[in-house]
Amino acid sequence: MADSEKISACVLVIGNEVLSGRTKDANLNWIASRCTEKGIQLAEARVIPDEEDVIVDAINECRQKYNYVFTTGGIGPTHDDITASCVAKAFGVKIERRKEAVELLETFIKKENLNEARLKMAEMPVGAELIYNPVSKAPGFRMNNVYVMAGVPSIMRAMFEGFSESLLSGEKVLSKSVACYLPEGAVAKGLSKIQQNHTRFDIGSYPFKISGKFGCTLVCRGTDEEELEIIISEISELIVELGGKPIDEDLVTPEDEKRPDDY
Amino acid sequence: MADSEKISACVLVIGNEVLSGRTKDANLNWIASRCTEKGIQLAEARVIPDEEDVIVDAINECRQKYNYVFTTGGIGPTHDDITASCVAKAFGVKIERRKEAVELLETFIKKENLNEARLKMAEMPVGAELIYNPVSKAPGFRMNNVYVMAGVPSIMRAMFEGFSESLLSGEKVLSKSVACYLPEGAVAKGLSKIQQNHTRFDIGSYPFKISGKFGCTLVCRGTDEEELEIIISEISELIVELGGKPIDEDLVTPEDEKRPDDY
Repeated sequence: MADSEKISACVLVIGNEVLSGRTKDANLNWIASRCTEKGIQLAEARVIPDEEDVIVDAINECRQKYNYVFTTGGIGPTHDDITASCVAKAFGVKIERRKEAVELLETFIKKENLNEARLKMAEMPVGAELIYNPVSKAPGFRMNNVYVMAGVPSIMRAMFEGFSESLLSGEKVLSKSVACYLPEGAVAKGLSKIQQNHTRFDIGSYPFKISGKFGCTLVCRGTDEEELEIIISEISELIVELGGKPIDEDLVTPEDEKRPDDY
Repeated sequence: MADSEKISACVLVIGNEVLSGRTKDANLNWIASRCTEKGIQLAEARVIPDEEDVIVDAINECRQKYNYVFTTGGIGPTHDDITASCVAKAFGVKIERRKEAVELLETFIKKENLNEARLKMAEMPVGAELIYNPVSKAPGFRMNNVYVMAGVPSIMRAMFEGFSESLLSGEKVLSKSVACYLPEGAVAKGLSKIQQNHTRFDIGSYPFKISGKFGCTLVCRGTDEEELEIIISEISELIVELGGKPIDEDLVTPEDEKRPDDY
């Protein structure tokens, strides 16, 4: 695939515990950042429950729609870990216990402790390729464009890093920001005009409040470096015109907690 | 609706900044917890980009599928805030500037600063009901079963608290947990049997590692208090049978960071 084509991806976070509020997902933001770095456009993310029909449907819908599907969760040894069998069902293939996977488990778990539950972690759809798990050996797997990873963040990250070199990279989306202590409502009109003149770019506005002062960070994203610089200059000029001062985005923190309503 | 019926909900997090990895969503977990407290079953969550077609389709799919749809993001004054017009399109109605909303804005923004961009925050689909924003006045709105809220967490929370009394409550899902310093793979078989004997309940297993010791928290969720106590007793007995000791779940932290692979 040519570098200039868009490569899209979707994340499926699988787990009742995220939907009940018990567990805060800690994977989506990390995968999103890694995709952006690689020029892969994360187009959607879904959190879905440990329910076979829902998982099968989501996998089938998303693997048609996007270049890559990254799933997290549901590949452990307990009865609520059903991701592998759901992926098999989605692809219409059987599930099988893989010798290489059992051997990997044996490097981490004493043979006498390798019970049926733990051996479940060596089961995957026929045709799947193992995803290496340097942390605890129990592998994930790739089935065509669907990458099935653990939900435990340290393991998920190690798995992703292991295969990320093999992912196609789209044209890298460059991002540049400029911030100012003007409220969003003041810059909105001028910013909208700049956006209209540069339709290949996405310009976003994100409010903040620091020490009681309202401001916003204006983020510009696109693939052409030269045009990106031009847009940032235009935004900076707009800020000056409005009586503000363009400041380095690093001086503001993009954490939601620091964002108020800053209309 | 009878109390015993299931009330379902879906969260739509709208914003490119979450998908690019720039911003960590800080709303989903909070809404999930509040839904659980109210007996509303959060069945799905999606993160989608600031793209009209995607937003319209997601709203139309989810409002049919679930009792409630809660959206966050995209209701500010800038060009990338398109949620209100997308909801109007999804419902096939026009968007209109609402007098009550303008009056609310006037209590917060000086009249001379109330430009077209800011007035956009007073526009909503014909037939919508305002959602009060005690933080910064710019209202959200409800269109049938779709609740449109700000993305800024403090505002979103205040909006949700304002209307949450009016939401239907389903039968409350009770949750009880017991933890132990046994790895998941050891309890899996017995736990699966307990699950099979109590099909109206969801039993989940969540690994952790504290000071180098592997363990798991076993979480049981369902609506019948008596049966819940029985299940927790059975799980506790299982732990003892396996040579472990049931411990209070509060002694372990459900944070993902503390979870290792604990097979």
